Amino acid sequence: MRKEPSPGERRVALVPDDVGRLLAAGLTVLVEHGAGDGAWLTNGAYVDAGAAVGSAEEVVAGADVLVMVDRPTPSEVATLAPNQTVIGMLRPLTDPDLARSLAERGVTAMSLDGIPRTLSRAQSMDALTSQANIAGYKAALVAADTFTRFFPLLITASGTFRPADVLVLGAGVAGLQAMGTVRRLGAVVTGYDIRPETRSEIESVGAKSLELAAGVSASGEGGYARSLTPAEQSAQQEELNGHIARRDVVIATAQVPGRRPPLLVTEAAVEQMRAGSVIVDVAASPLGGNVAGSIDGESVVTANGVTIVGAGNLPSEVSGAASAAFSRNISSLLVYLLKDGALLTDTDDEVLAGILVTRGGAVVNKATAELLAARASTGGNP
Amino acid sequence: MRKEPSPGERRVALVPDDVGRLLAAGLTVLVEHGAGDGAWLTNGAYVDAGAAVGSAEEVVAGADVLVMVDRPTPSEVATLAPNQTVIGMLRPLTDPDLARSLAERGVTAMSLDGIPRTLSRAQSMDALTSQANIAGYKAALVAADTFTRFFPLLITASGTFRPADVLVLGAGVAGLQAMGTVRRLGAVVTGYDIRPETRSEIESVGAKSLELAAGVSASGEGGYARSLTPAEQSAQQEELNGHIARRDVVIATAQVPGRRPPLLVTEAAVEQMRAGSVIVDVAASPLGGNVAGSIDGESVVTANGVTIVGAGNLPSEVSGAASAAFSRNISSLLVYLLKDGALLTDTDDEVLAGILVTRGGAVVNKATAELLAARASTGGNP
Repeated sequence: MRKEPSPGERRVALVPDDVGRLLAAGLTVLVEHGAGDGAWLTNGAYVDAGAAVGSAEEVVAGADVLVMVDRPTPSEVATLAPNQTVIGMLRPLTDPDLARSLAERGVTAMSLDGIPRTLSRAQSMDALTSQANIAGYKAALVAADTFTRFFPLLITASGTFRPADVLVLGAGVAGLQAMGTVRRLGAVVTGYDIRPETRSEIESVGAKSLELAAGVSASGEGGYARSLTPAEQSAQQEELNGHIARRDVVIATAQVPGRRPPLLVTEAAVEQMRAGSVIVDVAASPLGGNVAGSIDGESVVTANGVTIVGAGNLPSEVSGAASAAFSRNISSLLVYLLKDGALLTDTDDEVLAGILVTRGGAVVNKATAELLAARASTGGNP
Repeated sequence: MRKEPSPGERRVALVPDDVGRLLAAGLTVLVEHGAGDGAWLTNGAYVDAGAAVGSAEEVVAGADVLVMVDRPTPSEVATLAPNQTVIGMLRPLTDPDLARSLAERGVTAMSLDGIPRTLSRAQSMDALTSQANIAGYKAALVAADTFTRFFPLLITASGTFRPADVLVLGAGVAGLQAMGTVRRLGAVVTGYDIRPETRSEIESVGAKSLELAAGVSASGEGGYARSLTPAEQSAQQEELNGHIARRDVVIATAQVPGRRPPLLVTEAAVEQMRAGSVIVDVAASPLGGNVAGSIDGESVVTANGVTIVGAGNLPSEVSGAASAAFSRNISSLLVYLLKDGALLTDTDDEVLAGILVTRGGAVVNKATAELLAARASTGGNP
């Protein structure tokens, strides 16, 4: 495992606590010098756990299996050989070019975002869930820390402060954890999701469930919401804008796999909010986020005094917990895939079928292969 | 009231909600353009509440009573006239030169840090308490946001995360609010204060009270701790270092009025802490703070990976709540002092006696006058 090359990335894919699990499974572990720095994990801790420490070149050239939080860089891909396996969050549906270049190198590539989320034996490998949980916790902290008033009700000799009124959009793992953490801090929380069956989950973390009159069911496959039609979107949006405008804080967490995140907080909604309001966009990305005007990694103040925090990589800021969870996921996967000293190759296995992106020189993930074929037939612009 | 001139200061001394109280008491209210910007309060909100809005020069020259969060600047002092009254947090014991220059201008000066803290009718005027409350809340948020692991216990398919172990030093208003907020977030909290009678208060906010074997009583006047002798300090410090070293997070909040804050977290203690630990020094100031190596307004990472946040002006970061509370304090004071259209002059009144710093060309606050006399007799270096 090498140090994550992206400058803003403080996580590490494997922590010392899990090195022993891999050694017990018959693997040897080689770690780049300083790989754990961003999560306060020292080289000494890795060595004590039984890992060897080397340079990035030694790690990338010498590993049969290269584990990472994010994706390999183009220069790393150029050095990879057909006998090597790469495991990380490869996001093949938003970065199909990476999948193609990995296939061209003959590399076996597996992406943790393909772990079947409804399969119980894969829960301990589900990095999307573990990282979303951390993003939700951190989103609540960022919101409280950015807001210039109290989250809890406070009754003092210097006045009574009403609790903050917080709306969380999206009741997936991140949204529910954000609701629960905001509730812990004493604010009043309302949760909203286009999937009506999330209502009981929203209420179970102490939040009120927002029901729109213009509500429609929008449950999709694999536990995600499906995309809405334009007509549905417009009716819901108008009603939602009114709810957003009244809130002190909005935390937006809605994601659709492999797509641009849905725009839930429009420019019109932001313009109706009061000065001093805060929006945290957990879905912020280079493709856009849930909030009009959000910029990933930046905090923007609008003309009417609304602070929009583009927070697309919150797990990196909780690097200790996020690394520990990711490491548990990736080491559980490795232990699961190892049979008699080699990685499982049987794609009848649902876990492997879900995560396998490239093998034997081809892009074997169906959705990714279709995406690449569609792009090729339209000259690169689908 | 003018806009606070210090660039880092986002609070404002009077909010629109309290303008009506002052109008009802027979005052007129003049506010500088943009005075409320840092707390998201618009000129329009002040006008709607019945205030007039003008330039800084108009405000400073035209006011019979000039209210402020902090202190007047030297250039403001140079324009003040004997018929004017200044009310703010003047800190005469740490800035006696300001008191002298205000006396030289013949100005009447009152400092909110002189409000008798044990007098029940003065509780609504007690800005030290209201601002310390906010500092404690924010210190807990800053600590949670800086720490790279979870505060609460979390049991997930990706591993069990133990709750953070937090030590809060000082069980005054700020310390107790920090303990309560850390507890809300689900961390394990221990509180420590050199005054043994704070034990029940520490336990009442859900924290464990740390009892040192080398404990001595150090209760002082007015609800503060007194300074310890060097021998007492050394015995306590050695024992305390061991407790600090074991913690994930330390929040230090100990203040002694008019003095350099006590050094509670020594360099030796910081060196014993684990990488990734966080210290928030709420007492950080240009005079030093509770923590060796803290720099007010900055975040420092030590060689052994401990992050020390110098957080001496946290209320400014919670500018909405802090301004509302300060405004309630200063407007309560003004309403209290107003008798038949003029400010009370009778220093038999305990409130006025506590806050009056200069009047009729003299420094009338006894402790400040003694400090200035001592400095004069030693050529300026007491």
